Amino acid sequence: MADGDARGARRSARGGGRAARRQARGASVSSVAAPSYLKRQIPLVEYLTEEGLNKIEAQADRMLAEIGLEFREDPEVLEIWRTAGAEVEGERVRFPKGMLRELIKTAPSEFTQYARNRERSVQIGGNNTVFAPVYGPPFVIDLDKGRRYGTIEDFQNFVKLAYQSPHLHHSGGTVCEPVDIAVNKRHFDMVYAHLKYSDKPFMGSVTAPERAEDSVAMARLAFGEEFVDQNCVMIQLINANSPLVFDATMLGALKVYARANQACIVSPFILAGAMSPVTVAGTLSQVYCEGLAAAALTQLIRPGAPVVFGAFVSSISMQSGAPTFGSPEGSLLLSGAAQIARRLGLPFRSGGSFTASKVPDAQAAQESAHTILATVQSGVNFCLHSAGWLEGGLCSSYEKLVMDADQLGMMHVLAKGIDLSDEALAWDAFNEVGPGGHFLGAEHTQRNFETAFYRSTIADNNSFEQWESDGKLDAASRANKQWKEMLANYQPPELDVAIDDALQDFITRRKSEFPDSNV
Amino acid sequence: MADGDARGARRSARGGGRAARRQARGASVSSVAAPSYLKRQIPLVEYLTEEGLNKIEAQADRMLAEIGLEFREDPEVLEIWRTAGAEVEGERVRFPKGMLRELIKTAPSEFTQYARNRERSVQIGGNNTVFAPVYGPPFVIDLDKGRRYGTIEDFQNFVKLAYQSPHLHHSGGTVCEPVDIAVNKRHFDMVYAHLKYSDKPFMGSVTAPERAEDSVAMARLAFGEEFVDQNCVMIQLINANSPLVFDATMLGALKVYARANQACIVSPFILAGAMSPVTVAGTLSQVYCEGLAAAALTQLIRPGAPVVFGAFVSSISMQSGAPTFGSPEGSLLLSGAAQIARRLGLPFRSGGSFTASKVPDAQAAQESAHTILATVQSGVNFCLHSAGWLEGGLCSSYEKLVMDADQLGMMHVLAKGIDLSDEALAWDAFNEVGPGGHFLGAEHTQRNFETAFYRSTIADNNSFEQWESDGKLDAASRANKQWKEMLANYQPPELDVAIDDALQDFITRRKSEFPDSNV
Repeated sequence: MADGDARGARRSARGGGRAARRQARGASVSSVAAPSYLKRQIPLVEYLTEEGLNKIEAQADRMLAEIGLEFREDPEVLEIWRTAGAEVEGERVRFPKGMLRELIKTAPSEFTQYARNRERSVQIGGNNTVFAPVYGPPFVIDLDKGRRYGTIEDFQNFVKLAYQSPHLHHSGGTVCEPVDIAVNKRHFDMVYAHLKYSDKPFMGSVTAPERAEDSVAMARLAFGEEFVDQNCVMIQLINANSPLVFDATMLGALKVYARANQACIVSPFILAGAMSPVTVAGTLSQVYCEGLAAAALTQLIRPGAPVVFGAFVSSISMQSGAPTFGSPEGSLLLSGAAQIARRLGLPFRSGGSFTASKVPDAQAAQESAHTILATVQSGVNFCLHSAGWLEGGLCSSYEKLVMDADQLGMMHVLAKGIDLSDEALAWDAFNEVGPGGHFLGAEHTQRNFETAFYRSTIADNNSFEQWESDGKLDAASRANKQWKEMLANYQPPELDVAIDDALQDFITRRKSEFPDSNV
Repeated sequence: MADGDARGARRSARGGGRAARRQARGASVSSVAAPSYLKRQIPLVEYLTEEGLNKIEAQADRMLAEIGLEFREDPEVLEIWRTAGAEVEGERVRFPKGMLRELIKTAPSEFTQYARNRERSVQIGGNNTVFAPVYGPPFVIDLDKGRRYGTIEDFQNFVKLAYQSPHLHHSGGTVCEPVDIAVNKRHFDMVYAHLKYSDKPFMGSVTAPERAEDSVAMARLAFGEEFVDQNCVMIQLINANSPLVFDATMLGALKVYARANQACIVSPFILAGAMSPVTVAGTLSQVYCEGLAAAALTQLIRPGAPVVFGAFVSSISMQSGAPTFGSPEGSLLLSGAAQIARRLGLPFRSGGSFTASKVPDAQAAQESAHTILATVQSGVNFCLHSAGWLEGGLCSSYEKLVMDADQLGMMHVLAKGIDLSDEALAWDAFNEVGPGGHFLGAEHTQRNFETAFYRSTIADNNSFEQWESDGKLDAASRANKQWKEMLANYQPPELDVAIDDALQDFITRRKSEFPDSNV
């Protein structure tokens, strides 16, 4: 059972009464009282008709049968495909029509990823959207210290900020690369930081099969072996080497996690024009093939293992070859890929605070706004890079993290749609105020103003004069104040001492078993 | 016939052969070869169900019948209502259920606003969206000179920039207040600037009935008397004094324009929480009443006169009372009001580059992005304030005008949706490239790259190093360069000398007839 249930989860979690107390306290320690994920109550925005989807599927079927995909340097995977009935020729694998769709029938359309604090567990699929922070940048930037390589301190800071934000549901994975730690050892510190400084759900390492194994081992220490085997407690990003290739690293990680019943996000990583055709429709047919093939592979490895159909798709500048983000084509691609995932019956991952800007300026905000809105409207279930992205994903920004998170807060309001209760219709307010009156003092307003409108923590809505006397700060400068305040006020969630000790022992032992390496 | 037709329009335009040459040259003088308005081919985003709309309509009906609206200091309008069957009590007017909906049946659901250059005429209604620039700010701002009161030179500059932008379809109206000209005379200079420095459609003055008459007189000089009587060549903004009041100034302008068969945009101007209840549903029922009553009034004055159902609706900060923009509630209100307009069968006006920010920073971009996207997705037909807004509408920004216009360009691409032609599906590209290949050199890419992706004129997609060596400019600084370049390269459209002379004579004569006044 990939889905588990909250009661069972509680029962099997380590610590018994202590765990319960931890949970209770965990909730109060955090300053947030927020939903643990977004529930979309507004209609989906879909740009493809049924007929359009059929065309894309027909081309994908032809591509899978005639061109196929390559699975590189992984004889085991080739053997799995051969046994399953695919046509294997060298590393090229071709699929008879319908074979892959048949295979993914065992994958859950929706599943729970459990958090250490069960109140923060998230539901991935259906009408739900889970916001996770930026993933992968080697650089970090803030207004004080500028741009530099990320360190484990930065990593911990981003984990803390995501933990504190009421609008981020997930701790994410590589919130930045901690380049001050050897490549072959940093996964220990990353997974530990997610467990120590946050109690939200998180992601494991995928950069080598043994690092994936270490991540699973640490999850077992934190959640209990049996619980991990039966439930999803980690979700991982498995990128395609688009076009139409999966490499040994990603396949290795996919196998580890699928076998451990942990979730794989199988994601085409496409900059259209370079790694796919220069068209939306062509690119979508490629997304279909790459996502479906990898999703099917997870089910061959462990039927029922949770898998998310992903799409990281944008375009490039056809003048310079540089990646572009927040483009209209990007929104169409995102929405189209979501429709494909729904047709296949799989949860969908995409979206985020995408931008090519180097600083948290108007370009950054505009590009991110278009992608974030498309994320919610298209029904993305797991949104990686929801906050903190800059520079085409090369840089995690402290300021942008809190700016984006504020915008995610707005999305929670939008996603609720329009309340049509009698109280919302407010007849008594009209009756009280009448033509030419003022609603500020109305009884209805007094009853409702506390929860009436979303309160941005970044926007300055004051007069020019007030804003001037407040120091003429732009949004990024206000964000700079905000994240520093958040870090200054950070209170860690409780972590069971026995678990903490076990994790640290494991890390010390494992780190001593091999020398540092930067590969 | 409010709709006219392009051939008739050409025939009756002044100047004969000269006019034709002017048009031909006009098209080539401008650097743009762009659609004269946006045609939406993507589905509408609607947050209200039929049932929800029914609830709002039922409350509006009750409000119209029981509470009513006030029409202040205009006995003529009260008499018109009385004659039409409304219940008039002092300045309060109440409407029997269904009366107003019956009256608006004569209003066109779609009409053409003719431009001096007929190739730039716009279609208002249906699946079309017309983008007009910012309207009304007393201040202007740019990065070089900072914030100051607007002048006629600024006004002309904004007209020139809107003329040059391929993504703005309309010259707008009060692109900024030219405060260096007396209040009672500046309308001459404003209308003249729209006719002289642009050949896109424009808006007339509404600040007093005689200024409206002057605007119509100038339009008659430019378009011909008969043509103006039979066709829409000007569109005007008639705001309600929300809640539920129309004042004498606005009513006076409405009567002049409706009698002249020119279009009125009847717009509730609402900051929810102050001028309406603190809820979306309550506010929408008020929007329904205010828009419908004023639209019906135009039809009583001249059945068939073009009228647009408008909504300028946002919320306020319930802490400070300051207006807020780009909020999730704002998007829900905009979309809901559009649904009401469609139910009533009227074209809809809303939207724009709204923001409360004082500078073209991330806040400005994010707030504007949410409103602009909502504008296109909700099916707004006439979008005032599409570009250049800052500071809650108190300030027209040179930089933001070109930044927003760039974003409007993206909306043209989004609105086309996904091309599903064989060329777009790009089978031959996959066949040529295959797994692990690169699409940049593919024949399909070569055939399509010119038109493949929207090319932003503001975004910087280069590497950090390239961006650094280009001077580390943020988006606003790049926009600063762009508008200065545009103004330096500005070439005016041709204006028939006889028309120009007639306009100047009219202005000189009329200005000499009364002293300057600042009321």
